[in-house]
Amino acid sequence: MADKFMSMKNLTFTLNSRGGRYRSITPDYLSNHTPKRVDMVFKAALDLGKKVLHPMFEEMDRRPPQLVDGRVRIHPGVRPMLERLGEDGWISALFPERWEGESMPSSLLLCINYIFATANYSASVYAGLTMGAAKLILSFGSKTLQNRYLPPMLAGKWQGTMALTEPESGTSLGDLCTEAVPLEQGGSEPDQAKQGQYKISGEKIFISAGDHDGVDNVVHLMLARIKGAPPGVRGISLFVVPKFRPDSQGNLVDNDVIVTQVFHKLGYRGAPIVGLRLGEKENCIGYLVGKEHQGLSYMFQMMNNARLEVGMGATAIATSAYHSALTYCRTRCQGRKITASKDSAPIPIIEHPDVKRMLLFQRAVSEGSLSLILQCGMYEDILARDPSQTDCHLLLELLTPVAKTYPSEMGILSTSTAIQCFGGYGYCDDFPVEQHFRDMRIHTIHEGTTGIQAMDLLGRKLTMENGRTLILLKQEMEDAIGSARNHPELAKMVQEMGNAMGMLEKTSLGLGGVAMEKGPEAYLADASLFLEMFGIMVIGWQWLTMADAALVELAKLEKEGSKKKDILFYKGKVHVAHYFFAYELPKMEGLANTLEHSGQMTLDIPEACFTD
Amino acid sequence: MADKFMSMKNLTFTLNSRGGRYRSITPDYLSNHTPKRVDMVFKAALDLGKKVLHPMFEEMDRRPPQLVDGRVRIHPGVRPMLERLGEDGWISALFPERWEGESMPSSLLLCINYIFATANYSASVYAGLTMGAAKLILSFGSKTLQNRYLPPMLAGKWQGTMALTEPESGTSLGDLCTEAVPLEQGGSEPDQAKQGQYKISGEKIFISAGDHDGVDNVVHLMLARIKGAPPGVRGISLFVVPKFRPDSQGNLVDNDVIVTQVFHKLGYRGAPIVGLRLGEKENCIGYLVGKEHQGLSYMFQMMNNARLEVGMGATAIATSAYHSALTYCRTRCQGRKITASKDSAPIPIIEHPDVKRMLLFQRAVSEGSLSLILQCGMYEDILARDPSQTDCHLLLELLTPVAKTYPSEMGILSTSTAIQCFGGYGYCDDFPVEQHFRDMRIHTIHEGTTGIQAMDLLGRKLTMENGRTLILLKQEMEDAIGSARNHPELAKMVQEMGNAMGMLEKTSLGLGGVAMEKGPEAYLADASLFLEMFGIMVIGWQWLTMADAALVELAKLEKEGSKKKDILFYKGKVHVAHYFFAYELPKMEGLANTLEHSGQMTLDIPEACFTD
Repeated sequence: MADKFMSMKNLTFTLNSRGGRYRSITPDYLSNHTPKRVDMVFKAALDLGKKVLHPMFEEMDRRPPQLVDGRVRIHPGVRPMLERLGEDGWISALFPERWEGESMPSSLLLCINYIFATANYSASVYAGLTMGAAKLILSFGSKTLQNRYLPPMLAGKWQGTMALTEPESGTSLGDLCTEAVPLEQGGSEPDQAKQGQYKISGEKIFISAGDHDGVDNVVHLMLARIKGAPPGVRGISLFVVPKFRPDSQGNLVDNDVIVTQVFHKLGYRGAPIVGLRLGEKENCIGYLVGKEHQGLSYMFQMMNNARLEVGMGATAIATSAYHSALTYCRTRCQGRKITASKDSAPIPIIEHPDVKRMLLFQRAVSEGSLSLILQCGMYEDILARDPSQTDCHLLLELLTPVAKTYPSEMGILSTSTAIQCFGGYGYCDDFPVEQHFRDMRIHTIHEGTTGIQAMDLLGRKLTMENGRTLILLKQEMEDAIGSARNHPELAKMVQEMGNAMGMLEKTSLGLGGVAMEKGPEAYLADASLFLEMFGIMVIGWQWLTMADAALVELAKLEKEGSKKKDILFYKGKVHVAHYFFAYELPKMEGLANTLEHSGQMTLDIPEACFTD
Repeated sequence: MADKFMSMKNLTFTLNSRGGRYRSITPDYLSNHTPKRVDMVFKAALDLGKKVLHPMFEEMDRRPPQLVDGRVRIHPGVRPMLERLGEDGWISALFPERWEGESMPSSLLLCINYIFATANYSASVYAGLTMGAAKLILSFGSKTLQNRYLPPMLAGKWQGTMALTEPESGTSLGDLCTEAVPLEQGGSEPDQAKQGQYKISGEKIFISAGDHDGVDNVVHLMLARIKGAPPGVRGISLFVVPKFRPDSQGNLVDNDVIVTQVFHKLGYRGAPIVGLRLGEKENCIGYLVGKEHQGLSYMFQMMNNARLEVGMGATAIATSAYHSALTYCRTRCQGRKITASKDSAPIPIIEHPDVKRMLLFQRAVSEGSLSLILQCGMYEDILARDPSQTDCHLLLELLTPVAKTYPSEMGILSTSTAIQCFGGYGYCDDFPVEQHFRDMRIHTIHEGTTGIQAMDLLGRKLTMENGRTLILLKQEMEDAIGSARNHPELAKMVQEMGNAMGMLEKTSLGLGGVAMEKGPEAYLADASLFLEMFGIMVIGWQWLTMADAALVELAKLEKEGSKKKDILFYKGKVHVAHYFFAYELPKMEGLANTLEHSGQMTLDIPEACFTD
């Protein structure tokens, strides 16, 4: 399979064209990563994507994980892939030198994961999950836990997971009831060796990569409630709960973690999602990470990044589907121009305006999303190196629900549009787009549903520090507008961007009035629509920034003498930006209208009216 | 499985609340079908749906058709189902008495197919395809063909299909090249017995139910080009091409129709879609239906109805998914009201405003779509009984692309929203909604893609008889507005409906200007957006009509003394209408903006700019 699934040119352009007032800091934090080095790393990742991940793309879907004799059997290609990712240092890349990493900036890591996910989304999540779990141990775990768990995890030999959800506690984490009882509690004297050790009992579901035979051990970063802890979110602690625990001799012994089921999923089938029962034989030990009852706050420090990764995964799937559709539309001949003679030969379907529109839509979504995610990555990186940059923190907080949701929601439409480009063939598994459509559908659900992201944006993020977040975003957008003013070609976009900002502000103020008059429930009733509207504006900002950067590059090329393909690339970018402003940005109008006039009717309609 | 998958109350209400200036004719054409008789028929259909079709819903998906030794093996439940549908007269229902039918009006048949399709979409298409093929034979075939083929088809023993698509000719039917050579051509004298018989050779793909072991024979209504016929659509003829042809003794002999493949599809897996090779051994006979070169016009007389059936299928799947989601949202407890104490028990998720919004959206789509399809069914029925009602013909022509597309496009979002109601469980096959999401995705493709419907609406239907179609639709909508004025509660809706009509008219006029200035290609460049905008307006009209009818019923109930469940049903209807006008109708604004300001940019962007 030599399918093209991503564009390196586009990735590099997007990484380098990030805008806003922090642009000047960017080269600084990337100082250890020269453009040449970055290119090399990306090329190596793409090479791995092509040779290792992509060839398994379909087969991992067609032969999904199976529970056999208590163990989850997965595609045999995953084990060598994880070993390779470990050996070559991909899993440890973000870690400091002490762990043989290179403290890779978050932006670059997002790019690398993007490359892997365009090649094969399911295959890419294994290592990503391990990185996240390992980072939690590094950030909050004891030296003992670090020394015991990090080396095999970073080597790709042990799988890391995040174990939060329970059958009665999905979105509502405060209701989780997996229990942890201190081991030393039973004895009369405190036992040094058993400190920090707990007997775990309970049930978890929907645990990604929660068990499989591609690794020698699975390390769950698990939320549980210490016996006697306060109810709700304040009584939740974080534990390391391995499938096999090292005994005093360092041998691995069974830790009483039983796989109850493998979920049969619509897509994303290459990675197992499992249910777990803990402590059925009262022999499941968990190791406390950090302090008691602080588990949720630890987890949430990882959550922003996890949500960016979800947005990135959705973006990657949309990208890959777009490239399949593009190849098909260029080669498939069908129909003629309306004005052409009926006797003329059929033309490649890319020449039909409606097909071009479908391709433009997919680019608007996937490239706009990538740009936003890398913008967030930039704020993350600046903040990681200089925690005094609190404005970056606020921007990141504000934009994370958008960067998670816009790619995930619009990605459903984008991959659906990829199917449409193929006609009947798109509905068949002869082409990969039906799989992309299925793989995509998870992203509005995991790591917080769209409804949760919407309440986070409107209820928390927009009201932080008395609305300072929105002021900061406006400054960023005004910076982009100011820069774009240099190009007469962008005059209309500049004006429309300003109008969009004004519209959003008016809507926000209107909702503030609803909050005062009717209370918080009414304020949040239409939060999902607000998030949708906000998302369109934010992606508009990204397209304005990209159009600006593309025109700058075009001017350079014209001076230097043209490389035709490059010129077409930058011109194409500007076209897609125009498309976004003409076809996507106007959707804000209807949303603003609804947000202003709905009267929050969903609050008042009685449940009993859903009769039948 | 005792899942609820449709609401009989809602179906009957929708059938009886159809509005417009033709309302007065409605009771007349239904004269042979009293409300009591209709109820009885619907109940029998639902009973069959519950007992025969629905129990196979999941299994037909999990065990998709397989090509074994040249024959397509399908779920063993299909054969007894088809026999039952034949015996009980469901397949012959629309046919005249001569064929043991009861000349059932199209509206009622749409309702029955809706019931079957809510129970199990894939299972419902077998009989539907046979009906369509049989109707073609009845309308245009010779007595000999009728006598030979109709009895076993209407008995459910032979399968009917529509065989149009070829590998290089999907949307572009004019390019098809399956060939038909007259049998008598070879001999020196005309052979009476061989008249109307042709040797067929060629290849067909994407033939629904094109072969399976649930019947004894398969009868393809196939388009092919008689040798020497003019190129393009003017040279296409219609043939009956059976899998086994009756010989002179009446025995069935192999007709050289080979199954080349069974397509592996995203959904709709209970029904086989196959590829066929015809005449590999030069022994495939086809029987001309009607006159030479008239094939496409015959096929298109069936196409309107086929497109309504697609819209109805999409509506049915959305309905079924909604009922699953509703049941889940009523019983699944998670989270609390924002204002509730953290110690309080979790509440059913239907009480969360965002969940209510998602349920309202699904109702707005599925019930609005059903209403439009039955409205079209009404025009069809009036026209069938009185061909002088040419206005009904024009309305039907105008509304068919909408009735096909709105349910199909919005159904993708509606079933996706059903998944979202379930959270992670919606992504798993423990619940039926992921299958509904997959089953749905075919409908924007088959029987003419959305792009084709859009060009049909804007390019053909809107311009018929100098724009008379739109004037007629306006009259229908004004009738609905006039009636709704009786209810002060609908005053805002009435006003917004008027505004929407005005907006659409302005957009149409603007596009007329584009046509004059820039020609037909520019006029049609954004046709898909126009269809989307038009569809929202039309469904708004349906919701206004339903709200009006529901308020009339409510007034009656209040006089009669209340049945509480009925009151809730009608109040619910009015709520959903309000939802549609507040949340869906405003989407027209952004579309109008784009249609006015896009400058038809998709025409001008060079294909070369899709570089990477």
